[in-house]
Parts: sequence; structure tokens; C-alpha cells
Amino acid sequence: MTPVRATVGVDFGTESARAVLVDVGNGREIATAVHVYKSGVIDHHLPGEELILPPDWALQDPDDYLQALGMTVKAVLAQSGIDPAQIIGIGIDFTACTMMPVTSDGTPLCRLGDHRSNPHSWVKLWKHHAAQPEADLINETAATMGEPWLDRYGRKTSSEWFFAKALQILDESPETYASADRLIEAADWITWQLTGVETRNSTTAGYKALWSRREGFPDRKFFEALNSGFADVIDEKMSRDIANPGERAGSITASASELTGLVPGTAVAVANVDAHVSVPAATVVSPGRLVAVMGTSTCHIALADINQVVPGVCGVVEDGVVPGLFGYEAGQAAVGDMFGWFAELVSGGDENPGDMHQILEREAAALAPAESGLVALDWWNGNRSVLVDADLTGLLMGATLSTRRGEIYRAMLEATVFGTRVIIEAMEAAGVPIEETVACGGLPFQNQLLMQLTADITGRPVRVAESRQTPALGSAMFAAVAAGPALGGYESILEASSAMARLGDDEYLPTAAAQPIYDDLYEIYRSLHDSLGAEHSEMRRLHSLQERVRSLSPHRTKVEA
Amino acid sequence: MTPVRATVGVDFGTESARAVLVDVGNGREIATAVHVYKSGVIDHHLPGEELILPPDWALQDPDDYLQALGMTVKAVLAQSGIDPAQIIGIGIDFTACTMMPVTSDGTPLCRLGDHRSNPHSWVKLWKHHAAQPEADLINETAATMGEPWLDRYGRKTSSEWFFAKALQILDESPETYASADRLIEAADWITWQLTGVETRNSTTAGYKALWSRREGFPDRKFFEALNSGFADVIDEKMSRDIANPGERAGSITASASELTGLVPGTAVAVANVDAHVSVPAATVVSPGRLVAVMGTSTCHIALADINQVVPGVCGVVEDGVVPGLFGYEAGQAAVGDMFGWFAELVSGGDENPGDMHQILEREAAALAPAESGLVALDWWNGNRSVLVDADLTGLLMGATLSTRRGEIYRAMLEATVFGTRVIIEAMEAAGVPIEETVACGGLPFQNQLLMQLTADITGRPVRVAESRQTPALGSAMFAAVAAGPALGGYESILEASSAMARLGDDEYLPTAAAQPIYDDLYEIYRSLHDSLGAEHSEMRRLHSLQERVRSLSPHRTKVEA
Repeated sequence: MTPVRATVGVDFGTESARAVLVDVGNGREIATAVHVYKSGVIDHHLPGEELILPPDWALQDPDDYLQALGMTVKAVLAQSGIDPAQIIGIGIDFTACTMMPVTSDGTPLCRLGDHRSNPHSWVKLWKHHAAQPEADLINETAATMGEPWLDRYGRKTSSEWFFAKALQILDESPETYASADRLIEAADWITWQLTGVETRNSTTAGYKALWSRREGFPDRKFFEALNSGFADVIDEKMSRDIANPGERAGSITASASELTGLVPGTAVAVANVDAHVSVPAATVVSPGRLVAVMGTSTCHIALADINQVVPGVCGVVEDGVVPGLFGYEAGQAAVGDMFGWFAELVSGGDENPGDMHQILEREAAALAPAESGLVALDWWNGNRSVLVDADLTGLLMGATLSTRRGEIYRAMLEATVFGTRVIIEAMEAAGVPIEETVACGGLPFQNQLLMQLTADITGRPVRVAESRQTPALGSAMFAAVAAGPALGGYESILEASSAMARLGDDEYLPTAAAQPIYDDLYEIYRSLHDSLGAEHSEMRRLHSLQERVRSLSPHRTKVEA
Repeated sequence: MTPVRATVGVDFGTESARAVLVDVGNGREIATAVHVYKSGVIDHHLPGEELILPPDWALQDPDDYLQALGMTVKAVLAQSGIDPAQIIGIGIDFTACTMMPVTSDGTPLCRLGDHRSNPHSWVKLWKHHAAQPEADLINETAATMGEPWLDRYGRKTSSEWFFAKALQILDESPETYASADRLIEAADWITWQLTGVETRNSTTAGYKALWSRREGFPDRKFFEALNSGFADVIDEKMSRDIANPGERAGSITASASELTGLVPGTAVAVANVDAHVSVPAATVVSPGRLVAVMGTSTCHIALADINQVVPGVCGVVEDGVVPGLFGYEAGQAAVGDMFGWFAELVSGGDENPGDMHQILEREAAALAPAESGLVALDWWNGNRSVLVDADLTGLLMGATLSTRRGEIYRAMLEATVFGTRVIIEAMEAAGVPIEETVACGGLPFQNQLLMQLTADITGRPVRVAESRQTPALGSAMFAAVAAGPALGGYESILEASSAMARLGDDEYLPTAAAQPIYDDLYEIYRSLHDSLGAEHSEMRRLHSLQERVRSLSPHRTKVEA
């Protein structure tokens, strides 16, 4: 009997990291371990400090990542009982853009002396939204200067992305910016800790840092227009050397071996992004199927062999997901979060709204389409695609005195799927074909009603990836590619996907009776979507009024060093 | 010392009746008693019967009224210790249109043999909404025939009104219609029970039965066009002899004396409607002030010395409230009901959402205008004024993941006041002046925030009637007028109001800082109101879709005899 060849994938999420140890031959998940970050999301005050962070801030402690990395990898090794010498590679994926300032040897600034009390020296998590003024400046400047890359991002970049966050550091804490030898994605920083070598992955560079394989980064004069001190951000703080997922970043060092229990010299894959690494783990390596990574928010990724501008889609990156194809990414900023918000709202003062989800799903599942007379707009956290506006808000229409919570819950589920349908229609209109949805992430396993609604409302079958931890599995798959055939891995991610990824048995098919009713309900949703999403709509006037009222008692306080 | 002269007012509400014994000299409320109807609102099945009533049905048992009448009047007499001979009169008010079929001697059909098992022989309560097809026919027929009275009702009559209900009896149970010697308002039936004489009051005739002092009822040919068997409904089942409030309907009979403990011969006032009788009890007997009777729903009444068509206002009746003036009535179908719906929604499975109102009001009161970024349309039970459409529904816009229940609650309070502002603006545009609001009913005492919002949003001061039981007080005042000066009462309701009605000390003044913000928020509300209230709006298309889906599995079953 051939001994098992295995790889380890580590998925760094928002609250915790999860490692999975996988049989390279068949993708079987042999062991899993999760570790919750000690400081979690730092959005109130820095550990050990009194200073209250302004709203919209979200930081993390990089040492939490290292602790989680060591604990989880050691745990899966121990659980599996496998000889570490049989582990042919490790790969990691991360939330993005999650970035940090470090010194030239990779030491996080926030570990160092006075820097520790300055919020700008910590990791800015993906959902740090305090760089909106910088994002606005980037968008205005790019539009004015006619920057060619703007089309690739549906003509609007986000406050979550790399340069908005980097520019916020320069704007608000110039000496932090000056002290930072490098500005780097946390994903690439972890790989650096494992290999001792700084690498930069093409996925975050492409989707979050305005880079493309053909055109590189925006010109120096663009960055200079943002801020003269920002002109050389690429050459001073970053790198133009960008590696593709599947490439080998390096090998486990002695100190990384001590941290993780892996054998020195083990292959380490180039880092990747959680949603993108899920695509081949959901069996998708060719055009025609939409991957929906569904959790608190949903990320949609489709592949195509053509390069198209899809208005309102967040990014198109060549080789961004699978080599040789263009990866199209879109998203919905609140999905599970919206359902959670409602479950908590109707749970009264109860500490445990967990059971409420089940009650609500049961009540909602008993209803027929359009029976409740409710429709919602799923903008509880703005609209990421295709309107790309974080200021849009949620709407519920059709409530009466006899409206029950299960009806509202169902309307909220339906609204998120209507949002998905808008994205699918935008992709198809641009020539990116979508014949089926493959769902992964946590939600598809928790909410079967949502899966059936996805089939009924999009009019397309829905399959669910077999793995409940597609990002970690995907990272383990890329680790097998980084190790390569010589070590018992794979030549390409296509081969790895074919051998290691599977779909679950369930298939959700559109219901013939529901589809025409949902077509009519979607027409109403779309009409509200277009009218309230338009310039000067009631929703936008309402938001402006709120902003004006809030500015009278400002609560966005800049963090000045 | 002069012995106290007193009157008794009895207010027949939806769930209970309340009697108050009042000092005629100064309006002091000496004793109060409440009695809850044994069968309450009969909306599921008839007492002792298996038959399930269709949705939208709401019936009552007239014997519950008699029991409540006897119990409460005897109770206030006993409590007060006053010699019944000192009671110079009694008056009653009722919900309307609340109507019933009776025999020529006033016996309710539902007391009699086989009739008892037929729902159509029972009292149809004001909120019986199952006569919508008949209301639709009345509206269409009146429009087609160019009926002149249609303007007085804002060009649309309600399914709650007298002829829709009467026609439903004829349509669905012709033999009940045939057996009914009289069709009569419950208000007038109670007066009949007290006096032994049938009278008809001008308030219900004017506001609910298309009658006016100058033009009488609609023509025979109009009723004939509705149904040939309905042509003579006035002369066969009703009366053209209509008495004004303040007139004396008759005197307490021997049997009524036994029921109530009042002395035979005591003056009995012509019956009246709960909202309308509240107007002089809230000190309003002249133009310029809007009376808002605020409870589960709100009724607005203003007086003017001119006869104007006010589009969307439910009724204009000469002498309908105070002799010599035109009474304008408008309404909002869900006010307290909307707040109650939300309190129940967010109370989880708790049995007691009562405390939730206080929690919500405290949370809502801590907010600044427009701070939450929410706006609502207050149409949880349709729109009674000025759009007059029961099919319109509630809307909430502006929700985000950080929206809290207190913010939604405040948005719902604000929405009801925006609805009031629409009514005020419609009245003022038609020449009916409104300089101040006088609130009465239960809500003003429970929800001070709502009162302050009313001042801030309407830009007009708000006063609150001192009495917490203005309808019963108003009925006691009309009893004093029916008794007349010779017996120690009053010549007119103006005199009675001056002597017996008072405002509370609190005055809510518009806040200078809030007003301009609410002007802006109202502009947004009004824009949504006008666009979603329009023909073919998303809201109307949504309702049509719901109706279509529901018609696939019908649940409006006619009650056939």
C-alpha cells in the first residue's frame, strides 16, 4: 500500500483560521482544526489601550495569525497521525484586502515600541471602511485622468482595497507610512513567515491593487496625483514581482518548522484569496458556472475566455483564478449578515438567537412565492454589484398588520437571490455565460430554502460543493500544485481540481410553478432597484440627509498620530 | 350646598364599553366603569357554532352590548353614591358603521331560532371588511351615474360603511335581508333599547350612510342600479327621519330603568359616534383646531364654516359634529396597531409584549431626527386618507446592519405623523384652517414622544385633552344638552363644552432645530407616498401579484345561507 501523500491548506477568515489536512490522491479531508483569533476583530479599542477607535475601523493583530497558524497545523498533524514527511506542501488563503505595514525583515510595525499604540501600525482588515475619503479621491482622480484600468473594476474602486488603505496611513499618520519599509497583504506576509522570502500573489494584486499581468500597476503620475508622497508607493513599499497561485513561493524554514511541525524544505504555495481559492475547490475550472461563496456576505466568481467590461462587476483579472482564463468577481455585501440581523431583531432580549434561524426558515419554507405580498431590497450593507454603492440601504415593502416574521425572513432570502440574478444578468449581457450555480461556504449547508430559492429565482440549477471548507481545501489543492508532480502533486490546478474536488449529491432544480411568479416579482424588485438606486432617488436623498444630520455631531474622528 | 347634577355617558368601543358619571357643572368625572364584551370581536366562528368565518369578517353579539350597558351604568351609580334622581340624562356613543338586522320591535335577528346560526344575522362591526365587492360596486355605480354626493366622500366610499354591509346581506343571504324589518346602527339600537323608540342619528347617517341634511339619501334609482331588491332599502329598512346629536331621543323606559338603575323618564340623547363625540369633549367647537382621536387607528376631525371638497377626506357633514358647522373627517387606518405589530414582532416568543412598548419608546426618544437614516410609509392597514386605498401596504427604507429596533420604532412613529401632515395639508389646501392639534384617545397618554413628533413634524402646537375618556365624557355632555337648561343641563353643545371640557396642562411646541430636518424628511416621505401610491406603482403591482397568487387557492369563501 502506497503511503498517503497529503497537503495542508490554511484558510484565514475574519474571526478564526482553519487548517485542513487533505489526501492529495482523492481530496479526502483527513483532519481539520480551527483556532479563534485572540483579539478577533479590533473595532473598539487597541489591546491594552484606552483610545476608542472611530466607527468603520476594523483592525487585527498579526501575531494572532501566527498563533492560529501554529496551533492549527500542529493539530491536524497530530489528529491525522501522519508522518510530517508525507506532507508535500502547504498553501494558505486569506481575506482580502487585509494589509499591514512591516519593516524590511517582515516585522509588523505594531510589535514595535511606540508604534504599538498607533492604530495605523496594525493590520487593516478587509472590512475596515474608514478609508472612504481616500477611495473617493482614487475614483475621482482616475476618472479625471482617464486611467485605462478603471474599466476592469466596473469603473469604481472600493474603500476596502489596497491603495485606499495605504493612502489613509499616509494621510493620517505620515510617520507610520515613513516607518513602513513594506506594505503587504496579510496573505503574503504569512507566506513570508513560512518561507523567509517575500512574495506577492497575483490574485490580491489583480483584484485589490489595480495590477494586471499585461499592464502592471497604475503609473507613478497617478499615485503622485493622489499625494506627492505617494508617488513611489510601488517601488518604495511594494514589489512589481508578482507570482501566480500554484507557483511555489518557497520552502518551510527552520523557524517555520518549529512553529508548524512541518518538515523544513516542505513546499509552500503562493498565497491566495479565500473566495478565489474556493472556485477550483468547488470543481469550477472552466466557463459556464457561477461559484457563489455564501456566508455573511457572498462573493460570485465566474470564468470566461474573453476579457469583457461588465458594468458594476468588481474586478476582471486574467489568471486571477485559473491560469489562462479571465476571472470575473462580483459580490453582495450582506447575505447571511442580513438574515442574522433579522433573527436578532425578532429574538427579543434573548441571548441566543441561534435557534431563531431555524424557526424562521421553517416558517418561511411553508409559504408560497409572492403569497406574503412582500418584496425587499437586499442592501442592508450597501450594494457591491452592480450598483457599487456602499451608501444604498435596505428596503422592505408590502408589510401589513398580518405580516409575520417568517414572511419577512423569506422576503429577505428572496431579495438576496434577486440581487444574484441582477449579477448573473449583467454577466450574461456582457458575454460571460452562466448556466448553473455552484454554491459553497457555510450558508448552503444551513439554509436549504435559500438554495431552492436560488434555483427558482435564477432559473438555473444549483449544486453545492461537497466540502464544507472549500477555501482550506482549495489552498491544499494549490499546495499540491506548488509541490508539483515530482513530489506526488499535480501539474496544474485543473488536474488538482479534477482529482481532489467534488460536488455534493443534492441538486436544486428550478420549480416550474414558482419560476413565472418569481419572474414577475423580480420585475418589481428590478424596478425598485433601478429607481431607488438612481441618482437623486428618495433613498439617496435620505442618505444625504442622514449624513448631513450626522455631520452636525461628527463621529468620524481621524486617528492622528 | 346645591346637590350635584350629573349625566352618564357610555362609550361602546370595539372590545368593551365604558361608562362615566360626570358632574354637569364642571365636567368632573365622578365614577367610571368598564365592561369587556363576553364574545368580544367574533372573527373566527359564531358562539356555539362550528362554521369558520371567512377572513375579513368581524361580528358582535348585541346582547353583549346590553349586558355592558347595564353593568357599567349600575356600577357608576353605585360607585358615586349619587341618588339616581340627580342623573338628568344619559348619552351613548358607538363605533361606526356597526350595524345589524332587527325585527320591527327591535329584536336582533341573531336571537331568533334558525337565524342564530347565520352570520349575516349578527352585528357587523365597523372593521368587518368582507363587503369590499359591494363597496367596489357602489363606487363604480356612483361614478358611472354621476352621483352628486360622491364628492362629499372624497369620491370613494368604504367597505366599512352602511350600504356595503347591507348589500352584502342581500347578496349573500337574501332571506336574512327579507327577515330584517329594520337595518340599524348599533348606536341607534341601544338608544331604542333605552327609550322604546326608534331614532336615527345624523352623524352615522351623514358619515356612513351617504345622507345629508340638505339632500337626504341617494335616489331610489341608485339603489336599484346596485340590486333591484335593494331599491327601497331606505323606506323598507331604514328611516328618513334623522335627528341631530344633542336632541332628546326619548326617556328611560321601565325596562331600561330595570337594566340600568336610572329613573324612568330620565332624558336619553340621540346617539353619536365615538370619534365625533370626542370633538367637543376635547374643547373643540369652532374652526382652526384638528382633533386627533388616537388609538389603534386615528380619526381626524376638523370644523369649518365652509363646505369644501377635500380630495381624499372621508366625509364632510353639515352639523355632523357641532350644529352650524361642517365637520371634516379623515383617518389613518393603523397607528397604535402599527406600533403594536412591531412591538410584537421584536418581542420574540414572549407572551407579554406590553413592556416592549416602553423599551422601544425609550430607545426611540434617545435619537435625533433623521439620525437613523430610516423612513417608513405608514400603510400597514392601507391608506384611509388621502389616497383612500385599503390595498396600499407598509414600507421601511434605509435599513442597515446597524439599524436597531428603537430606530425602526421611531421611523414608524414619524411615518404616522407624516401621514397626519398629508391630511392637514389637504385640508388647508381646500380652505379648512388647522392651527393646532388637540389629541385625545389612549395614545397621547402612553406615548409622549409621539406627541412631540406630532408638533415637530406638523409644525403646529399639540395639546392633549384632559380626560382620558373623551368619548364617554362627550356622550355625557350631549346628555346634558338633551336634558336641557330646564333640568339643569345646557342649551347647546358649545355651552356644555365650555363648562365641562378641558385641556391638560402639557403643551408640545415644535422644536426649532427639528422642524427643518423633518421638512426635508417629509419631502422624501411625500415623494415615496406619491410615487408608490400612484397607479401601476411597484407597490400596486406587488399587491396585484399577491392577489393573483392567492386567487389560485381562494380563501374568501362567501357565507351562503
